[in-house]
Parts: sequence; C-alpha cells; structure tokens
Amino acid sequence: MTCQVEFRERADFEAALRDLPGPDRDACAFARARQDSLTKPRGALGKLEDLSVFLAGWQARRMPRLEKVSCLVFAGNHGVVAQGISAYPAEVTRQMVRNFEEGGAAINQLCQLAEASLQVIALELDQQTRDFTCEAAMTEAEVCAALNAGAAAVPVTADCLLLGEMGIGNTTAAAALSLSLFGGQAEDWVGPGTGLKGERLRHKARVVAEAVRRHNGHELETFDLLRCLGGRELAAIAGAVIAARHRRIPVLLDGFISTAAAAVLTRVTPDSLDHTLLSHLSAEPGHRHLAEALNKEPILHLDLRLGEASGAAIALMILRAALATYAGMASFDEARVSREEAEND
Amino acid sequence: MTCQVEFRERADFEAALRDLPGPDRDACAFARARQDSLTKPRGALGKLEDLSVFLAGWQARRMPRLEKVSCLVFAGNHGVVAQGISAYPAEVTRQMVRNFEEGGAAINQLCQLAEASLQVIALELDQQTRDFTCEAAMTEAEVCAALNAGAAAVPVTADCLLLGEMGIGNTTAAAALSLSLFGGQAEDWVGPGTGLKGERLRHKARVVAEAVRRHNGHELETFDLLRCLGGRELAAIAGAVIAARHRRIPVLLDGFISTAAAAVLTRVTPDSLDHTLLSHLSAEPGHRHLAEALNKEPILHLDLRLGEASGAAIALMILRAALATYAGMASFDEARVSREEAEND
Repeated sequence: MTCQVEFRERADFEAALRDLPGPDRDACAFARARQDSLTKPRGALGKLEDLSVFLAGWQARRMPRLEKVSCLVFAGNHGVVAQGISAYPAEVTRQMVRNFEEGGAAINQLCQLAEASLQVIALELDQQTRDFTCEAAMTEAEVCAALNAGAAAVPVTADCLLLGEMGIGNTTAAAALSLSLFGGQAEDWVGPGTGLKGERLRHKARVVAEAVRRHNGHELETFDLLRCLGGRELAAIAGAVIAARHRRIPVLLDGFISTAAAAVLTRVTPDSLDHTLLSHLSAEPGHRHLAEALNKEPILHLDLRLGEASGAAIALMILRAALATYAGMASFDEARVSREEAEND
Repeated sequence: MTCQVEFRERADFEAALRDLPGPDRDACAFARARQDSLTKPRGALGKLEDLSVFLAGWQARRMPRLEKVSCLVFAGNHGVVAQGISAYPAEVTRQMVRNFEEGGAAINQLCQLAEASLQVIALELDQQTRDFTCEAAMTEAEVCAALNAGAAAVPVTADCLLLGEMGIGNTTAAAALSLSLFGGQAEDWVGPGTGLKGERLRHKARVVAEAVRRHNGHELETFDLLRCLGGRELAAIAGAVIAARHRRIPVLLDGFISTAAAAVLTRVTPDSLDHTLLSHLSAEPGHRHLAEALNKEPILHLDLRLGEASGAAIALMILRAALATYAGMASFDEARVSREEAEND
C-alpha cells in the first residue's frame, strides 16, 4: 500500500477508490474488551465507547491518540453565484479567507480550544468555477488539480483530520450533488445557506433542479459529478478523504457541504466513507437527509450552519473525551470495585 | 440578597425558593447584539449562540467566562437496595468514591480534560436511607443536613457549577420522584440503571409504583418529596441548585438522577431551574420524559448513562466552545467582511 495519492487523470481517481484499507480488527477487538473492563456499567459511556473503538480501528492502534490533529479548510468560488443563490456577495469568500489568516473567524477560536492545527487552502479564488446551470463547473484537469490540492494537504502522519470549507454559493453545489446522488426533490436538499428566505430560496431550488436536469446528474459517474456540479473546495475534500483513508487517518467531516463532497465517493465505492464521522447535524435541512442516506449518526446536534470545519473542531473535543476515559480510567480489578451481580437475567 | 443559604428546618427550604434572582437582561441583550456583529451569518453558530447569551445573563456579565468551574459529585446509599433493584451491590458506592479519590473514574479524566475542579462529597455512606417502600427515606433533619451539604459545597464565587452523583439504587429514587412529580406510569420512569434486564426491571417498576402509592407522591410538597422518596445525594443536588441561583452561578445538570433531584424544586417554584442546563440526554429512558416535562433541550446526545457528572463535564467543553467564539471572533467591521445583501426578502 502506497501513501502517495496523486490524481493525474480521471483513471487515477477510480484507481484510488479501489482496494481501500479497512479498520484493524485486532485493535477494534482490543478496544471493545478494554472498555468492558473499565469501572463503569458495561456500555455506560455510550457513543464515547463506540468512538474509542472507531479510532482504534482506523488508526490501527490498540491505544489510539489525538496528539497531532490537522484541520483543513478549503475555499473556492462558484460561477453559479451569477444566478443569485446566496445572501452574501462572492467577494466574501476571499474576505473570510483573510479573516481565517488573521485569526478572527470561528474556526480559529475552535481549533485553538480543541488543539487542532489549522491550515486554510484557498483554491484559485480569482477564477471561479463555471456556472453549472450553463455548462460543466470544471474541466477534467481542474478537478484533478483540486483533488490533488486536497490530497497534498493531508499530512503523511496525523491522528485525525478535520475537513471543512468556505465558498459563497457552495450549498447550491452541495444540494445539486446530493440530488444527483440520492434523488428526491430539489426542495429536499436546498436550504437557506448563509440566510436565504422566501422567493430567493425557491429560486435556489429551481436553479438546483435545472442544473441536475441539464447534466443528467442521476446518471453521472463519480468523477463527472464533481466536474459538472461540484466546486474546487468540494473536490479537494473528496481528495483529502481518499488520501486520509490510504494513510490510516480517521476523518471528521463537518456539515452539509463537506458531507455532500465526501458522499460523492460512495457512488463508486459504498464503504469509502467508513473511516469518516459526521461531526454534527447541521441546521441546513439537507444534512439530515444526507446523514440518513449515508447511514451515519452525527456526533453533535447544535444547529450549527457555518461550515469552516466549525462542527468538526467541536466534535474533536468529544473524541478527546472518548480517549481520555478509554486511556485513563481504572479497571474493576485495579480499583477493587465489585462487578455486576450474576443473578441479573 | 444574601449569598448565605442554610437550611435549619423545612421553612428555610421554602423561603430559599422565594424571590429567586433572574438573569441580567442588559448582559443578555449585549450578548445577543454582539453575536449578530460577529463574522458569520446571523444565527449560524446555533445553540452556541444561545449558550453564550445564557451564560451572560446568569453570570450577569456582558463577557461571561469559565475560568473557575467546580464539579460536585455527591454520593449516598439507599435503603431501597434491599428490594433488589440494582445490578450492582450497595458497597459499590463506597468503592466508587474511593475510585474517584484515586483518580480512576470517568469523571476524573473528564474534569481534567474540561478543566473543572472535582470535589467528591460522600454523604453518610455507612448510614443508608430507609427503604422507602416501607417508610420515609429520611427525617426532616436528615433532609436539611443533605441540603446543607449541597449548598455548602457550592463555592461563593464560581463561573459554572457541574452537578453529578453516585449511589447504587438512586435511579429507583429518581424514578419515584419523577413519577410523583409528573405522573404517568412507573414504567415510563424506570430504566436499566446500571444494567437491569427482564424480570428484575419489571420488579423495579413495581417497587417504584408501590413506593409512590404508599407516600401518596402525587400530592407531596417539595420538601416531603425529598424526605419520603429522595436520597441524601439527591437532596444535596437540590440544595446546590438553590445555592447556585442565589450566587449567580449557572449550573450544568448531569443526567437522569441529577435532573430528577433538581426537578423537585419546580413543584414549588416553576422557574427555579432557569439557571440550569441539561448537559445531555441520558440513555436512561426516563430522562427524555424529564427533559420534555421541564421543557429543556439537552446539549449533548451521546447515550451516556453513567452519572458522576460525566455528561456535565463533556457539556462544559461545549460551553467553552460557545465562549471561545463569542469572545474571540472578529466583527464584520473589524475583519472588513461584507455583510448580507439587502435584497434578501
């Protein structure tokens, strides 16, 4: 298995999604048995126990750790903003990237609190993707460049990866991808994004429906989904998810856009997101449908709808709680605590 | 207003629940306005924004803080264990208190991670309450002693208080209190606790129903609820909740037992828990009904059912995330980021 993931052409993308490594079964079994030995009723730490087993399996370590955590925020601009589908002007993408760099955004505070190392990757912000209501958003070369930017940003070794994004217009792209992948009506996948209401929200749904119809989204192959209806930051997230899998790095996906970008991979390889967690259930309504379609239970329910990996950074603290208890608690034997009585039928 | 809360007799208890201070309206308004100035779409941080406003109001500070956080875990033993309503023997209460003192329990790891100062208060462990299927669990003097233990453990100044418990048998007491307060069937409030199943779980429900019937629980006054059907650690939690209110300390309640103990106060003063938050929704099934009856939305949904304030310690990290963003983010003006476009109807 190579840890080098590079996309020179679409065939590389399909190849990278074959022969994905699975979790380490020994580490999973060890972690589950250790949880059952600790001073608490069996299962009493609920999802924290599952998270410790998940981290053991995907890190392939009996005692998983969270010492080196990398948070990647990809930013891109979208031609579809010409259709008036965002409450904020497109220049906000660049302004927010500067805000990230100056330390003033939510994700700066949250990465500092959760002890993750933040890296912001601006992707050709002065060259927005094409308006996908008229033509494909990107060329094959542009998709490969974005996939590579994503994969290249993943550290060769890390204990966990947080993936987020910034891009005015990108809930529209995420909705178009979701509708193409999972069907339903455009209205199921379209939400207020940064704050659309009323007629402008209905217009956004029409834009998404028209784009998916134009590109025959329901029948597109994975790579073409990204090319026709995606965006640079979405393709970068997909590339990072693949690279993380090959490097045995568990991933915290952020909200609606990050999840939609990653979900594209499931069209070719259904288990391609098994090393990822949904950090939270976004207030963006399409996210609930995505979580259900992917059969993944979000860790947090905080009605966030910001992106930037903000939910992932908060969920990292839950992973830290899982490992703090897993690593630090005494066993029944060590603490000389009596076990459950046998007569419980 | 005095910050001294002392219970010499039941009249002191009722007096302490009168004239409870409310939140600081100016601090709340300031916090809400500040949230709307920060570089994110309005409301995009969801519940984090609400939590920052909550902390501002109940700390009566425009810029609330979490520098000094106290976690109190009260432990007590229960005569009702004679009825065979727990999967663990009663000596586990004392063994777990020793485990807390030696640093081996879940709450030790979680307080260290979340930066809370842990204090364990063992309440007469060698003198369990009376079996409330036969007689009142405590005397008036015993209830007052437990209330005082709770109130006395609350620091005179703290930025937040986490309240939890340990006591083999105390889900049975919590279920009896809940059934008395909010009605329904015993089965609605009884759950596995440390791990009961099958016939033993059905037996526990019969024990709870019989106890509530014997003491005419639906008509008991608040103080008598604690006396007849409570326990020392539950009364201590109630005392701590009252003391915290008078000292302007917001409270994170832990799970089913902590919430049931606090809920007793609402029988005399419906708004007596306005300064408290439900840290999480416990896997103990009665907790969902309690949350609904109190009209409080739990912060976390992690299927925890451990007690010990474990959920409160994890929820503290969410409060820290709320304040990190509230205090640290740049405003639109500071960051020179364009605001929402006006034409959004």
